[in-house]
Amino acid sequence: MVGTTTESASGTGQPWSEAEITRLLATPARLAQGWVPGPPPNKPVISLYAGVPDAPTFPVAEIGEAVRTVLQREPAPALEYLLGTPQGVVELRQMVVDVMEPEPGLALGAQNVVITSGSAHAFACVCQTFLDPGDYCVIEAPTYAGAIRAAKGSAARFAAVPMDEQGMRVDRLDETLDRLEREGTPAKLIYIIPVFHNPAGTTMPLERRRQLIEVASRHRVLIVEDDAYGELRYRGEPVPSLLSLSGGEGVIRMGTVSKTIAPGLRVGWIKGPKPLIDGLVRMRFDNGTSPFAQRTVRAYVEAGHFRPHVAVVRDVYKRKFEAMDAALGEHLSRLCSWTDPDGGFFIWVKLPDGLSDLALQPFAWDEGVSYFPGSAFYMNDDEHGHIRLAFSAVRPQEIGEAVARLGRAITRAAAGAR
Amino acid sequence: MVGTTTESASGTGQPWSEAEITRLLATPARLAQGWVPGPPPNKPVISLYAGVPDAPTFPVAEIGEAVRTVLQREPAPALEYLLGTPQGVVELRQMVVDVMEPEPGLALGAQNVVITSGSAHAFACVCQTFLDPGDYCVIEAPTYAGAIRAAKGSAARFAAVPMDEQGMRVDRLDETLDRLEREGTPAKLIYIIPVFHNPAGTTMPLERRRQLIEVASRHRVLIVEDDAYGELRYRGEPVPSLLSLSGGEGVIRMGTVSKTIAPGLRVGWIKGPKPLIDGLVRMRFDNGTSPFAQRTVRAYVEAGHFRPHVAVVRDVYKRKFEAMDAALGEHLSRLCSWTDPDGGFFIWVKLPDGLSDLALQPFAWDEGVSYFPGSAFYMNDDEHGHIRLAFSAVRPQEIGEAVARLGRAITRAAAGAR
Repeated sequence: MVGTTTESASGTGQPWSEAEITRLLATPARLAQGWVPGPPPNKPVISLYAGVPDAPTFPVAEIGEAVRTVLQREPAPALEYLLGTPQGVVELRQMVVDVMEPEPGLALGAQNVVITSGSAHAFACVCQTFLDPGDYCVIEAPTYAGAIRAAKGSAARFAAVPMDEQGMRVDRLDETLDRLEREGTPAKLIYIIPVFHNPAGTTMPLERRRQLIEVASRHRVLIVEDDAYGELRYRGEPVPSLLSLSGGEGVIRMGTVSKTIAPGLRVGWIKGPKPLIDGLVRMRFDNGTSPFAQRTVRAYVEAGHFRPHVAVVRDVYKRKFEAMDAALGEHLSRLCSWTDPDGGFFIWVKLPDGLSDLALQPFAWDEGVSYFPGSAFYMNDDEHGHIRLAFSAVRPQEIGEAVARLGRAITRAAAGAR
Repeated sequence: MVGTTTESASGTGQPWSEAEITRLLATPARLAQGWVPGPPPNKPVISLYAGVPDAPTFPVAEIGEAVRTVLQREPAPALEYLLGTPQGVVELRQMVVDVMEPEPGLALGAQNVVITSGSAHAFACVCQTFLDPGDYCVIEAPTYAGAIRAAKGSAARFAAVPMDEQGMRVDRLDETLDRLEREGTPAKLIYIIPVFHNPAGTTMPLERRRQLIEVASRHRVLIVEDDAYGELRYRGEPVPSLLSLSGGEGVIRMGTVSKTIAPGLRVGWIKGPKPLIDGLVRMRFDNGTSPFAQRTVRAYVEAGHFRPHVAVVRDVYKRKFEAMDAALGEHLSRLCSWTDPDGGFFIWVKLPDGLSDLALQPFAWDEGVSYFPGSAFYMNDDEHGHIRLAFSAVRPQEIGEAVARLGRAITRAAAGAR
């Protein structure tokens, strides 16, 4: 498996075959897929692939200042284990409900928050805490690829509910929950991205949110609300969160600083009813999220940087969105249709009939542009009619060129597909 | 569950009962226990409770310097998501095998390492990757309480193997593995702490290590080697790791910077055969460990601080160990026996016959000293004859007083127990 350079090192054990090694893995680990690969390294492309922030906007100086504050003011608790509980630094938990993600109408406190290592980690914690093997997890079709991976890691089964321009279709959800009950396998949770959906870009309006909560509550199914992008609204008015509309019951909401400060800190959270937060805390076996990172975020917010910085990045992404929307109109209007999100990082493009997201890929790489294949956002990877474009990280001056290249790739690939 | 402050917030859903909420949790989350509680906050004690490092030795200035280097040299990759793979920053993975934890005789590279958020997280990843519900995990009795919690979180079953002064008894391990095979439930992995055992203080000598590898290899069971304390040796010569002795097959080894730099960074690793590391990487749903923390550790080590700092803290802990050993001789020699470790953070004390670790607790708190109850280190919490004393974090000038208090508490409690 690994080379031995001395005689003496080997010999104590007997060599293992590949099959013997593979048998050691648990079932989900044998079945798990890795990350969807990006373009090959020898292909220089303009990347519309990953849903990552705009690196030039990272508040590097302010984060450095926050670290200095922490190391001067509280070096021991920042560098020590989280003592007492893995739930997280209490001042940061309070700051989440007071400053970073308040819920109008709900009286939440630090006891309603657990700090996680980003919101991908938050959903991994949710899966470990709520899903026994074989439990049903209801998802939107399409939905965030990482969430599908995480739930498969807990050996969950899936039921997918279609979306329209208002997000998950609640009438179809109700039918699905009815069916699962009839079949003796009632759903355990509904994973949903109600705002600036990844990848579909939709935002669920107030009336449908109320219907969703009514249906989930009637079926006694937990709603897991993933809100990573909600601060990045380019137009229109904010809609109350599902957690807030629920009155604080039957919903947990996941947030993160990855899109507002920086993903490299790996700080996110889950908010919700205390008995569910307590369950999540009991299932933390990692000794909690880095107190160094938590206290850095706390010092950054305390210094007053959070809201002004959100306003700055919101404007950066809004301008990128507008540039990409205009470029799509110029280069793709006769080939494709695409979504018109009110915020977030993504545009979801419907390819010409008969052209698959995977068949397009070599043409796109050849033209010098990359995207995320839409099939990765479906539980069986079997819907090939869309691609996701991330406008968040691309340089503004390259957006037009990237979309022009995509237009040429689609034209060539569609000609080949016919 | 959480209070609502406006009429409009509630009412969309129906109130949930406690039972309905609890039913949402997966089986391991319902059964999971929280952390073993420390002394009540109104009892001021000298703490010998937690296995935490000596905070005054944290290299605060050098960590600050490392952060400055990272934010100047590589702000974007440090603050961005880990791109390409959640396995970890490749330069840090290489540094683990070259500098921080080399394996003499084995040719390991960055592909044999996955970076984790500390070694508690490392074992949580191991459980998720290797244990299906009901799989058997072989542990030492006693063993690290956090490992028992994590494996219970994966709904594992346990087989415990007794220890002697050389660590796990390999003859009894062999019998246990035979029995599990006969019963149709062969063990999946052996979790073992071969050096400066937590809590028992033992270090497994070379000959028994060879026997252990032979037995595990014959039964085709994975050895999970937990080495958090190995750098903190006060006397004697280092023994080769199980990974190194195995020739790189059938063993994975977990390490951490928590005891050598600072636990608050949450940086650890797992090393081993590439197919097993690949399985662990596929089961990372958290987007990987903070690149900010990883690059800070890398810059710290690169600046040459690691080995000199290890020498400093080793000396600090050695002097604390000697002070506690002397104090035990002075105050407990007629009451108890205790271990004589060659390194690490802990002394494991055998209480007088008939006195339980839990019965002693109120007496100890009353006298003004705390310890970790020994029963927490057994899978069924049912062995009450020991307590664990951590000498790592206590102030040197308080060690004598702490042990004197413990002596008074044991004297009083044993009188009451008779």
